[in-house]
Amino acid sequence: MTVFEHHEYDGHEGVHFAHDRESGLHAIIAIHNTALGPALGGCRYWTYQDSEAALTDVLRLSRGMTYKSALAGLSFGGGKSVILADPRAQKTPAQLQAMGSFVESLGGRYHIAEDVGISVADVEVMAERTRHVAGIRAGDAGDPSPATAFGVFCGIRAAVRHSSSLDSLRDVPIAVQGLGQVGMELCRLLFGEGARLFVSDLNPERMKQARERFDAIPLEGDALLDVDAEVFAPCALGGVINDLSLERLRASIVAGAANNQLAEARHGRALQERGILYAPDYVINAGGVINIAHETRAGGPTYDRARAFQAVARIAETLEEIFRRAQQQGIATSEAADQLAVARVAQATHRAA
Amino acid sequence: MTVFEHHEYDGHEGVHFAHDRESGLHAIIAIHNTALGPALGGCRYWTYQDSEAALTDVLRLSRGMTYKSALAGLSFGGGKSVILADPRAQKTPAQLQAMGSFVESLGGRYHIAEDVGISVADVEVMAERTRHVAGIRAGDAGDPSPATAFGVFCGIRAAVRHSSSLDSLRDVPIAVQGLGQVGMELCRLLFGEGARLFVSDLNPERMKQARERFDAIPLEGDALLDVDAEVFAPCALGGVINDLSLERLRASIVAGAANNQLAEARHGRALQERGILYAPDYVINAGGVINIAHETRAGGPTYDRARAFQAVARIAETLEEIFRRAQQQGIATSEAADQLAVARVAQATHRAA
Repeated sequence: MTVFEHHEYDGHEGVHFAHDRESGLHAIIAIHNTALGPALGGCRYWTYQDSEAALTDVLRLSRGMTYKSALAGLSFGGGKSVILADPRAQKTPAQLQAMGSFVESLGGRYHIAEDVGISVADVEVMAERTRHVAGIRAGDAGDPSPATAFGVFCGIRAAVRHSSSLDSLRDVPIAVQGLGQVGMELCRLLFGEGARLFVSDLNPERMKQARERFDAIPLEGDALLDVDAEVFAPCALGGVINDLSLERLRASIVAGAANNQLAEARHGRALQERGILYAPDYVINAGGVINIAHETRAGGPTYDRARAFQAVARIAETLEEIFRRAQQQGIATSEAADQLAVARVAQATHRAA
Repeated sequence: MTVFEHHEYDGHEGVHFAHDRESGLHAIIAIHNTALGPALGGCRYWTYQDSEAALTDVLRLSRGMTYKSALAGLSFGGGKSVILADPRAQKTPAQLQAMGSFVESLGGRYHIAEDVGISVADVEVMAERTRHVAGIRAGDAGDPSPATAFGVFCGIRAAVRHSSSLDSLRDVPIAVQGLGQVGMELCRLLFGEGARLFVSDLNPERMKQARERFDAIPLEGDALLDVDAEVFAPCALGGVINDLSLERLRASIVAGAANNQLAEARHGRALQERGILYAPDYVINAGGVINIAHETRAGGPTYDRARAFQAVARIAETLEEIFRRAQQQGIATSEAADQLAVARVAQATHRAA
C-alpha cells in the first residue's frame, strides 16, 4: 500500500517525498487541492513510528487544510508537510534549510508555516531557501494566537445567538479548557463581554492568573465537563468529545480552539442527537490561518491588522450558515461544514476548468 | 512500507506522486540523484498490479539512470517516471498534458523522455506543458536507435580488443539476438567491418533481411547460445544471462544493447567465473541517452550529430577502464561498473557540497 491506495488518500494532487543526504532530512509534503489557490499548511516535526504513519498524518491534515481554507474564504488550497524526526538526532539548521529547498522546488504550489515541533524561528531558517513561507516575523502579522482567539470569541457569540437568541455574553457561563496563548486571550475577550468563566489547565500558575485577571473559577482535571455552563470551549487537547465525555458534558454548546475535537467523526452526530450545538473546530479556529493569509497576499508585505481581524470576524457568518444548513437538513453541524467545504472547492474546480 | 522503507529506496532525493482529477492521471516521478545534473530518464506507461509495483519499478529504474548517465560522462542525474495505466481506459492527450504539467511543476529537476508505452509523439504532447523534455523530433536528434547501435558496436570492438588483442572484427563470429531497430543497425555496422554474423529474431521477415543484406546465418529459438561465437550480443529481451543460459553459452564475450541482461546481479560474477567478458549493459547501451543529452544541452537546439557520435564512441574507453579495474581487483565487470558509477556520483556530490 503506497500513496494511491492509502486509506487517507483522497485524490490528493501531489504527495512529495524528499531526502537530503547532507542534512539527513526525510520529509513529505502533501498537496491536497489547489482549486482555490496554492496549498497552505503547517509543517510538523515529529518522531513517527515509520513513514507509513507520517504519510497517514500528512494526507489527513492536508485534506483538513483544504476544508479549513475553503470555509475561511481564503484564496488558498490545502497542504501540509511533515519532517520525520530521527529520535537519535537533533533538529538542525541544515535540515530546515533543506526543507526550504524542498518547498521551493515545488514552485510555490505549497506554502509552509509553523506547526507542532516547528517554531516561527524554524520557518525563518527555511525562508533562507524559499519565498513560499507564511507566518514569519518579517511578514508583520506576528503571533497568530490573538487572531485565533478572536475568531473563537466571534464564533462563541454566533453560537450563543443561534442557540438562545442572546445578543450578549453578559453572565453567560463559559468553561474554557486550556489556558495557553489562545485560551488565555479568549478568556480576556469573554471577560470583557461579562461572561462568567470556569477554567482548567495543568499549570496552576495559569489558573491563578485567570482567576486574578478574569474572575475565573479554576477547576482541577476534567471537572469542567460537569459544570453547568452554556458553552464548553476546548482550547487544549484534541479528541475531547468522545464516548466518555459525552456522558458527562452539560453544556449546550461546544465551541473552542482545539484541533480535532471530535474523537471520531460519528461524535459530531452524537452531539446533534443530544441537542448540543457544535461549532466545527476547523471553522471556528481558522483565525490564525486567516491572519496569515492576509500577510502572504500577493504583492508583498501589505499586512493590515484591522482588515485581517475583520476577515476573522466573518467566521461568525460562516458558522451561522452551517448552523442553518444543519438545522434545515437535519444533519450534524460537522457534516454541514464538510458539505459546504466540498461544495466551495468543487465550485472553484469547475470555474478553473 | 511507504517510500523511505521501500526495499528499492536508495536515498532517492525525491519521489513525487501526482494525481490529476480531470484527466485521471496517476503518476510517479522518482529523482534518484542530481549531483551530476538534472535527472534524465524515460516515462513508462504501464498497467501495474498496484502502485506498490509502480513504485518498485520507478525507484529501481531511476537509480539505474544515475549510474548510466554517470558512466556515459553526461551532466545529467538519474530519474524515471511511470504513468499508472488504467486497464479499462485509453491513454489520452489530457493525461499526457497533465504529465507535462507534473514534470514542469518540479522546475527542471527532472527531464522526461520516451520509454515503454510512451512514444516520441506522446512526449511531444507533454511538451505542450513543459520545456523539460528530451528526445523529441523538434530537438533534431531524432530516432535514438542508430546512436545506441553505434555505441554497442564501439563497445564490442573494445571488448574484442581487450579479450583477444584483435584490432579488427574481420572474420570474428558474432551472434546478435534480436533484429529490432538497434539490432539490425548493429548488424549493418558489424558486417561493414567484416564480422561473420549469426542472428535470431521472432520475425522471419527480419531474419531474411539480415541474411540478404549482411550474409547473416539465421537461427531459430535460442540456438544462438550454442553457436561457437566470439561475441554474444543480446539486443532484445532482458534476463537472457541466467542459470540456464550460462550452461549453454559458448561465447567469450557478452556485449549487446538489451537492458537488464543479467537475470540477477550474481550472474555478473557467474560470467566472470566462467572467463566470459561482460560489457555491462547500461554502459554499452548508453548511446541513445548520450545522443539525447547532446540535444537538450542548455542554450537551445544545438544538436551536432558528429559531436554526439564522437561522445558515443567514448563508451569504448569507459568499458576499457571497467575491464581493467575488474581485472586488477578480481571482481566482475558488472561490479566494477557500479563501483565506478558510485565513485563518480560521490565525487560530484563532494564538489557540490
